Amino acid sequence: MTADKYQARMRAHTNIALVKYWGKRNKNLFLPVTSSLSLTLDAFYTETEVLFDPSLKEDSFTLDGQVQTGQSLAKVSNFVDLFRRDFNMSLPVQITSRNHVPTAAGLASSASAFAALAAASNQALGLGLSPEEVSVYARQGSGSASRSLFGGFALWHKGQGDDSASSYAQQIDPADWDIAMLVVLVNPGPKKISSRQGMEHTMQSSPFYALWPEEVAKDLSAMEDAIKDRNIDQIGIIAEHNAMKMHATMIASNPSFTYWQAQSLLAMERVRQLRQAGYSAYFTMDAGPNVKVICPYSQVEAIRQALLDDFAEDHLVISRPGPAPYAV
Amino acid sequence: MTADKYQARMRAHTNIALVKYWGKRNKNLFLPVTSSLSLTLDAFYTETEVLFDPSLKEDSFTLDGQVQTGQSLAKVSNFVDLFRRDFNMSLPVQITSRNHVPTAAGLASSASAFAALAAASNQALGLGLSPEEVSVYARQGSGSASRSLFGGFALWHKGQGDDSASSYAQQIDPADWDIAMLVVLVNPGPKKISSRQGMEHTMQSSPFYALWPEEVAKDLSAMEDAIKDRNIDQIGIIAEHNAMKMHATMIASNPSFTYWQAQSLLAMERVRQLRQAGYSAYFTMDAGPNVKVICPYSQVEAIRQALLDDFAEDHLVISRPGPAPYAV
Repeated sequence: MTADKYQARMRAHTNIALVKYWGKRNKNLFLPVTSSLSLTLDAFYTETEVLFDPSLKEDSFTLDGQVQTGQSLAKVSNFVDLFRRDFNMSLPVQITSRNHVPTAAGLASSASAFAALAAASNQALGLGLSPEEVSVYARQGSGSASRSLFGGFALWHKGQGDDSASSYAQQIDPADWDIAMLVVLVNPGPKKISSRQGMEHTMQSSPFYALWPEEVAKDLSAMEDAIKDRNIDQIGIIAEHNAMKMHATMIASNPSFTYWQAQSLLAMERVRQLRQAGYSAYFTMDAGPNVKVICPYSQVEAIRQALLDDFAEDHLVISRPGPAPYAV
Repeated sequence: MTADKYQARMRAHTNIALVKYWGKRNKNLFLPVTSSLSLTLDAFYTETEVLFDPSLKEDSFTLDGQVQTGQSLAKVSNFVDLFRRDFNMSLPVQITSRNHVPTAAGLASSASAFAALAAASNQALGLGLSPEEVSVYARQGSGSASRSLFGGFALWHKGQGDDSASSYAQQIDPADWDIAMLVVLVNPGPKKISSRQGMEHTMQSSPFYALWPEEVAKDLSAMEDAIKDRNIDQIGIIAEHNAMKMHATMIASNPSFTYWQAQSLLAMERVRQLRQAGYSAYFTMDAGPNVKVICPYSQVEAIRQALLDDFAEDHLVISRPGPAPYAV
């Protein structure tokens, strides 16, 4: 590595798991207990520019125009160390990142953030890593970031033992057909319990977590078939049940906890009613109060209209499937 | 049995399970999958008068001043048949019953109702059955009614196989010490999913139900110790976790369902906050949206005051432990 400057700017999209990632078997390497499967979303993304430059004094990180220090800076700096270590270089990096999500959406941005940072690092340094290889890096910033290296439906393999390279993501379907997601933004407040804390407390104290890995294995297999068949109802049924089983493991923790809020219950009930009315609408939820509605793209505007009775216009965001990271 | 008239009027109190009954192994005999343990409440009860009289043309049933017909009449008439069959008599019965629960509380009244009817039948007919024996009858009207034959803490034994007589309740502690329950009445509307339906759907479709029986066995054993020790915090911790595990089995059903409503989430969150503030307050929930707070009687008024910020005065009902059925 010479003392030149290396620069790139990439956009990566967030993804929503349809078969969830819930629990690490190795916390340091972000190796998951199970494989997981997601849909990348067009509407939410992070743009990140990296500049590796010998004239920089130290690493810096600006997020949404705010200079980051302390843990926030350390986290991305440590992440870039993975590249510097593997490729035997030590250039300081200047990272400038912007999340494109609705104001205070409370929507997880770590997936798109670490996917963008990993993709930009690969691009800037001319490493020529495949998306699967980049996903192994992204995973070590935030587990679900591994899946944001791909457009459409992505499968993140749990891998074997402590072999980091074996736990990568790949695309299984471009989702270039009649499918969409409607995100119902519930509460913009900060989370009281982080995903990491929720996961760990559940693994430690929920008796039902013991059954989670086998449930995921069954759901993954059925979901891959449903995607192959482009069967939106099957996709929705499996995704909704999988998400609810994950939330049930939390509720069965000791002490019990939940990310659900009043409006989460309302959104779920409305989706059930829309289904009664004939729509192919199903919900999923992550470690937060927002509700994401899986449906055909051809029905999503009607579903949005129906939800306008209970939710503000700027709290209902339609998204089509999103692409893999690209240079901007 | 001669052609005399036989009459009695009994009051029986409702009970709230601290280790829940969730699932029948025999639907006809109301034989449960697990044993369960409850606290009888002073504040909510049913008063029932029975009159067995040869001059009556047929069975009749008046509930809260309303003459009942159809299924409602058939249910109690069939229930009294259990006595008529076992004691070889056929007198028509006139049943007059009144539920003493706050208006439209949505609080289960079937427990106190069938306990009162069974106790009144035993009394009127002079059968001399022990409370344990009467509980076997009450159980066949509504499972949880078996526990309302006793004051304080009652244990309903699951019994063996299809042996109805082996599944009876008994008192394990009179609860004549510093314990109370604060009932938070959430939504007075009718339930969309009955307990029976919820139970059956959960048993049929929830993967986590497989672990429920062993969880109950552990919780029962720990709860009996906690009651012996009069350790309200242990009682509360076990009861809250047990209730949440039951609700988790429902949420993990396919399709998922829940009895929780917005105000249920709020009440649970407030109880967690009261705990943070040093109160020994714990919640339990049944197949409905109401939240019941377990706490020392010496703290219940302060807890009620705190909850008045979010709940109307007539939606917060304090109850001390209640007695066994008695003649009125």
